[in-house]
Amino acid sequence: MREFRQFGHQLIDWVADYLENPERYPVLSTIQPNDIIAGLPAHGPAQGESIARIFEDFERIVLPGITHWNHPRFLAFFANTSSPPAILAELLAAALNANAILWKTSPAVTELEVVTLRWLLDWLGLPNKEKQWFGIIHDTASTGTMHAIAAARQAAAPETRDSGAPANLVLYTSDQAHSSVEKGAMALGIGRRNVRAIGSDAEFRMRPDLLAEAIRNDRAAGLRPFCVVATVGTTSTTSIDPVAAIAEIAAREGIWLHVDAAYAGSAGIVPEYRWILDGCERADSLVFNPHKWLMVPVDCSVLYCARPDVLRQTFSLVPEILRTSDGGLNFMDYGVPLGHRFRALKLWFVLRYYGHEGLARIIRDQIAMTQELRERMAGDARFEICAPAPLSVICFRRRGSDEENRMLLDAINGSGRFFLSSTVAHGRYMLRIAIGNMRTSRATLDQLWSLLNALVGI
Amino acid sequence: MREFRQFGHQLIDWVADYLENPERYPVLSTIQPNDIIAGLPAHGPAQGESIARIFEDFERIVLPGITHWNHPRFLAFFANTSSPPAILAELLAAALNANAILWKTSPAVTELEVVTLRWLLDWLGLPNKEKQWFGIIHDTASTGTMHAIAAARQAAAPETRDSGAPANLVLYTSDQAHSSVEKGAMALGIGRRNVRAIGSDAEFRMRPDLLAEAIRNDRAAGLRPFCVVATVGTTSTTSIDPVAAIAEIAAREGIWLHVDAAYAGSAGIVPEYRWILDGCERADSLVFNPHKWLMVPVDCSVLYCARPDVLRQTFSLVPEILRTSDGGLNFMDYGVPLGHRFRALKLWFVLRYYGHEGLARIIRDQIAMTQELRERMAGDARFEICAPAPLSVICFRRRGSDEENRMLLDAINGSGRFFLSSTVAHGRYMLRIAIGNMRTSRATLDQLWSLLNALVGI
Repeated sequence: MREFRQFGHQLIDWVADYLENPERYPVLSTIQPNDIIAGLPAHGPAQGESIARIFEDFERIVLPGITHWNHPRFLAFFANTSSPPAILAELLAAALNANAILWKTSPAVTELEVVTLRWLLDWLGLPNKEKQWFGIIHDTASTGTMHAIAAARQAAAPETRDSGAPANLVLYTSDQAHSSVEKGAMALGIGRRNVRAIGSDAEFRMRPDLLAEAIRNDRAAGLRPFCVVATVGTTSTTSIDPVAAIAEIAAREGIWLHVDAAYAGSAGIVPEYRWILDGCERADSLVFNPHKWLMVPVDCSVLYCARPDVLRQTFSLVPEILRTSDGGLNFMDYGVPLGHRFRALKLWFVLRYYGHEGLARIIRDQIAMTQELRERMAGDARFEICAPAPLSVICFRRRGSDEENRMLLDAINGSGRFFLSSTVAHGRYMLRIAIGNMRTSRATLDQLWSLLNALVGI
Repeated sequence: MREFRQFGHQLIDWVADYLENPERYPVLSTIQPNDIIAGLPAHGPAQGESIARIFEDFERIVLPGITHWNHPRFLAFFANTSSPPAILAELLAAALNANAILWKTSPAVTELEVVTLRWLLDWLGLPNKEKQWFGIIHDTASTGTMHAIAAARQAAAPETRDSGAPANLVLYTSDQAHSSVEKGAMALGIGRRNVRAIGSDAEFRMRPDLLAEAIRNDRAAGLRPFCVVATVGTTSTTSIDPVAAIAEIAAREGIWLHVDAAYAGSAGIVPEYRWILDGCERADSLVFNPHKWLMVPVDCSVLYCARPDVLRQTFSLVPEILRTSDGGLNFMDYGVPLGHRFRALKLWFVLRYYGHEGLARIIRDQIAMTQELRERMAGDARFEICAPAPLSVICFRRRGSDEENRMLLDAINGSGRFFLSSTVAHGRYMLRIAIGNMRTSRATLDQLWSLLNALVGI
């Protein structure tokens, strides 16, 4: 333990230095495929080595291969933050190594998850009165969404659990939905052909009229619509589906409504952005990722389900070795994973350390600085804004060809100073600037603007 | 960052003290359901709080609700260890917050996973020459097994991806298999009725003759056998299925062989226990959990697949925003989760810190001390050994009724000194002693033996 103490203190200082100044590293790793594999031995060591040796290799070999997600100039995909209190909580969670397979295998893990997810529900303005929302943390939104679709199927076809799923089930989502929806359906054996990508309007939002029409057509063809997945904050353009209108259709048709709010959900805790969740109180399930925009490191994705009985019926299987009678909540009854890591600890540290107002302030400010840069770009004839994107993402192009835009992106990322990503929406190639790291400031965005100016020219 | 530094150092010392003497806590939490929920506010704080405040509540409210998995007297389920180097690695991983959605989103995360999983393959004696084993880390073996079954289905019915799964697929496993096999099938929409629990012999091993017969009968009935799941180290009694014989049948029948070696797989790195993996070189996929018996904290479950092309065909879906052309390995193509945490870092720290021989020594010693206690119990007329259990678990009963055995278990666990679990195999109730924590010593087991003696009487 002497070595642990000594290196523990050293690593705390290393992490503090890192968090104070991640800018000393290029944000995007510049290594080539296989560089790290080639830099490490083909066989593991027969004899043990000191932590000093391992850490030396960490700095020399591993670190150059890191793309720094926790870096203020990481503006790709959905930028995010691993905050100091969350990092300390992960240290504690690793030491305890508690595993909430069952309530009794570590009651605090289960109950702290219940408590923090209720706090969030409250902050999100999703009332817990008419509905008993059940919450559980998964590794990713893809996993949560797959669980939600499985529950939707169980609700529509209760025979699934015992005899297997019927062949004619159909799922609806928009042409802007995340690939995890289609992938979840594929994994569950539903088949891509039974996933309808409903068209979106000019602002990239699912069109309820087309949804209603598709359901009508499928019913006429003898198929069984069972689930619709709406998105609050799509991956490409952060568009917000009209959830209330979609909920209306889902209720009328008796199909499950799942909402993918993986990214934008966090903004729901900010009073003036609460509108993005309008209609979500009518959903059967919803996922959102504190590891995207709530200062919690990966992995921490929340699945809320308003029909926990169905989720339980979909997944509960209790072997003899895990039989209990203590009346505690056993998370294993509600999903595929049996092991359940203490992810709630970092969430609890973050919710308390920043508080509701502190987190709302960070998100509000990130949206404000995004919109300021966006206005600047909109007012400049060399650029065009490609999507309404009301939150912390800008979708833009320089005026010119796709090829010129691709070259611009390569030049930005190749500079080592910023990491941006691109997408294609409605057939149109566009670049994206995503703000979500707590250290990203107006000064950071000024630097990006200068770089853009320098690269695009007058 | 001053607060981070200050508390970081404090927490390192707290963790070191904890690891040096977890015995100051009762191993099994004694709180009642809802105690923690009731002890915490119903609403999250509006204003932020200091880490000092949060940590105070962690010690006062959360800690009493922890069942200490990282405790030398935790002998329930499969006991395990979160080792000092792994804990430090988790601290670094949380600070970096790297996410290997794609190779390029943090090349080191992907490549270190490739390297460490190759090292393990080598240590497990699963040659990588004829077969290109692909490895990936999931949160739990349940998740890995579900992915394996999905791949098996895709191999048997390639139409699944597009049109959905056919209804007549049948999966085989033993009546001793872990519930995750059946649950995986349920989740995938295969239905419990299409999962055959093949009978096991007196030593709890799947009977290949009954497997062959079941496949024959199902084929005769027009069904489509597609997968068999063998277990190396069952959860109840750690029995080892005859994988070579099962592989023979799987090959003859053209069905996928998945091996669940979640617990026992780690023992395969010890030369004299390598035999437990005999036949596994013929498997199509295999899961084993370094977070069970390789000194790595939860979560770290490895899925190896000998047919990565099929795994890829089952799960690959590339949205525009994630299109790449760098030739790097993108883990998202091989499973449901899109986000991919830097779990390989803790694995790498552990493999290097202890080395192959160091880890083998720990496991070998744990098996030896288990077998010593077992011999002691076998030589005592008050106890009977209920299963061969050749590794680090003892299945036993005191002579007497089930009720007397249940009371014995309650007395042990109620003492707060040890945590044991129970199971039922072949209709018989039995208690289990599982060794797997690095700090569990012969002295610990002597104390357990004394307690057993005191409770059972002369």
